[in-house]
Amino acid sequence: MTGMTSQASRPQTMAEKILSRRSGQAVYAGDLAVVDVDQVMVVDSIAQSFIERMQRDLGALPKHPERVSIVIDHVAPASTVSVAQAQKEAREYAAATGVRLFDVGRGICHQVLMEEGLARPGWIVLGSDSHSTTYGAVAAFGTGMGATDIALAAASGKTWLRVPESVKVIFTGELQPGVTAKDAALEMIRRLGADGATYQSIEMHAGDRFTRGERMTLANLCVEAGAKVGLVVPGGEILTEYGYDIPDWVYPDAGAAYVQEIHIDLSALNPRMSAPSEVDNVHDVAELRGLKVDQVFIGTCTNGRIEDLHAAADVLRGRQVAPGTRLLVIPASSQVLEEALTDGTLLTLQRAGAVLGTPGCGPCMGRHQGVLAPGEVCVSTSNRNFIGRMGDKDAKIYLASPAVAAATAVMGRIALPQDLTRAPA
Amino acid sequence: MTGMTSQASRPQTMAEKILSRRSGQAVYAGDLAVVDVDQVMVVDSIAQSFIERMQRDLGALPKHPERVSIVIDHVAPASTVSVAQAQKEAREYAAATGVRLFDVGRGICHQVLMEEGLARPGWIVLGSDSHSTTYGAVAAFGTGMGATDIALAAASGKTWLRVPESVKVIFTGELQPGVTAKDAALEMIRRLGADGATYQSIEMHAGDRFTRGERMTLANLCVEAGAKVGLVVPGGEILTEYGYDIPDWVYPDAGAAYVQEIHIDLSALNPRMSAPSEVDNVHDVAELRGLKVDQVFIGTCTNGRIEDLHAAADVLRGRQVAPGTRLLVIPASSQVLEEALTDGTLLTLQRAGAVLGTPGCGPCMGRHQGVLAPGEVCVSTSNRNFIGRMGDKDAKIYLASPAVAAATAVMGRIALPQDLTRAPA
Repeated sequence: MTGMTSQASRPQTMAEKILSRRSGQAVYAGDLAVVDVDQVMVVDSIAQSFIERMQRDLGALPKHPERVSIVIDHVAPASTVSVAQAQKEAREYAAATGVRLFDVGRGICHQVLMEEGLARPGWIVLGSDSHSTTYGAVAAFGTGMGATDIALAAASGKTWLRVPESVKVIFTGELQPGVTAKDAALEMIRRLGADGATYQSIEMHAGDRFTRGERMTLANLCVEAGAKVGLVVPGGEILTEYGYDIPDWVYPDAGAAYVQEIHIDLSALNPRMSAPSEVDNVHDVAELRGLKVDQVFIGTCTNGRIEDLHAAADVLRGRQVAPGTRLLVIPASSQVLEEALTDGTLLTLQRAGAVLGTPGCGPCMGRHQGVLAPGEVCVSTSNRNFIGRMGDKDAKIYLASPAVAAATAVMGRIALPQDLTRAPA
Repeated sequence: MTGMTSQASRPQTMAEKILSRRSGQAVYAGDLAVVDVDQVMVVDSIAQSFIERMQRDLGALPKHPERVSIVIDHVAPASTVSVAQAQKEAREYAAATGVRLFDVGRGICHQVLMEEGLARPGWIVLGSDSHSTTYGAVAAFGTGMGATDIALAAASGKTWLRVPESVKVIFTGELQPGVTAKDAALEMIRRLGADGATYQSIEMHAGDRFTRGERMTLANLCVEAGAKVGLVVPGGEILTEYGYDIPDWVYPDAGAAYVQEIHIDLSALNPRMSAPSEVDNVHDVAELRGLKVDQVFIGTCTNGRIEDLHAAADVLRGRQVAPGTRLLVIPASSQVLEEALTDGTLLTLQRAGAVLGTPGCGPCMGRHQGVLAPGEVCVSTSNRNFIGRMGDKDAKIYLASPAVAAATAVMGRIALPQDLTRAPA
């Protein structure tokens, strides 16, 4: 059968295709596969554990230093001496072993690896961060693992995986103006449920819909349904603009077996919002409209790219953040920041009263740069609204698209961009 | 005698002149004066104590809410839940009492008050931050006090002061190219010694030398000699460009009594650097040249203004920060950031590899955004290099001008701008 892995006896999903190719034998859901790892990504907050595993427990050097990247992004610049010490050790380890280091301010791990070409179609990318599913945007098998598994992969150049079952998500129709990939992603998580795809591959079929950045938003959120991996079938822009070499063997076979199939009609979607305190608690923004908001955060690996800042700037241009509301804007990477500097986006945001932060994870996981106080309400473009995620356990987090976040900042209350025509001058 | 306070029996220093006028009676060094307070400034890290004094201990409201400003700058955006809670209480207090609030990202207290016209010639400005001497740049009697004194001033509209003795510092000659007000200020502190002007007024005579920003650098550092206040006799740009109304009664009388007189020939100065771990441990940069540096920090109330960023950009333009060295640039205020955005300075810094931070105090006092690890070396444009100031007690801080800091970032070692012509390509 055309495109099927040579030894394969029956049609395969995208996950099965990639893992078969990379393990050198036909594997199916439930099988164990040992695969070559193309990139191991370690974030600052895990770096000490990773180094300890490598040096003390394994007594090993990275087998392929060029396939290991350390990214200082979670608490960067360092907010405490112990964080600073961990980052220092990461720098020293990188210098001693030759692994790549992306230091303070370079940006969020997933964005940086993508910009640097360190996630590519058909690659296996293991990250010490749960949102490593993001690499599925470019048909890389990206998944998050703990320090021990990451270290074993760095030391051996391989990892083992149980081949996941797959859910097929089929996007049809076209998004209405003002509705975004974030809304599609939130709707997907709602439909699947927070544990609806545990250890499964979410295989997303969207034809040529969605840019690379939008595909990153979709793949990023897959872990919020518990997925092991979120793979977007290549199409459209990523086939052309970014010049990826996309091997035939990453595409799923017709007739592959799925545990579930979900159809999402994009044309029927309204702007969506995930209300506290689970990502799958998704509503139309219109239902939540009017709730007073203390902080708005635009950024993260979910929605901190240049197109996200553009969407925010389009709403904020010539307007002002509401008194009593803080708007934090943290570009996902230094490259995003530089684009926003060059094209005037940052000036638009600044003039509207946005507060700029150092490229990186910002307050997404509540460790610095915008931690929430008890009782505070935040609208965020990030990916998690769990209790205590961004600070106090009595703070509330609502997840939305950059345009909705920007409109909310202007109104000081949850709002849609179209509500701004009704805003007082 | 012309310009002498009407009741004055003998010539007065600038401190005596201002305190006489504002207390309504002729006072001299050693006298007690009760004066009207024009502005009380409270920073985020003191706000909770201030509010507690006002509400619990004094049971008072601010007598003149328009004369009280709260600035959220020391740890902004919030890095922990308790910091976030303190900032929340500050916002609520401001909303309830009508005092001014400058929220996250507006900038460093001293810079913001100056930009907002909340420090003016002849004013009494009390700040809950030791570098409140900065207001002396515009002939305001600015001084730092603790939460209790600040609260009493806010509640009563007045404060009492022992009139300080004065040191007269006379600047002569002209700075050579590449030598800055920071170098003059460091030299002044070296000459005075770290406790050489304890509770005294440092009265600086510079004619029409120095811009307002440069005068802020000079007055800012006066507290590093222990001074109660640092007053720059008005002249030059601040008489014209900023349109201050400068009353005759702020100028010192000829023949006033000083405890000490220091002459600093600006033309004889080289770029200076304060080595660990006291500000008065001042050397020529050339003596310290070559020491490897982990972090360079350009910012703070001492040197985070637009002219400081310009000086850094002039050095960094077309160059790159050395591998293994981090350069943090944190504008002193949102206004500085916006100017740097508009005039291309920020893009120059970004392209050179600088890491931008949210306008505010940054890592100056080691509480977030660039805390130093044990053994790390930092060149900073700030004002304190005490043990543990920016993080670990075994980190080392060297204080210098923005141009020297920028050159150091490019070389990865302590350097002068002229060293860069010798840098490898």
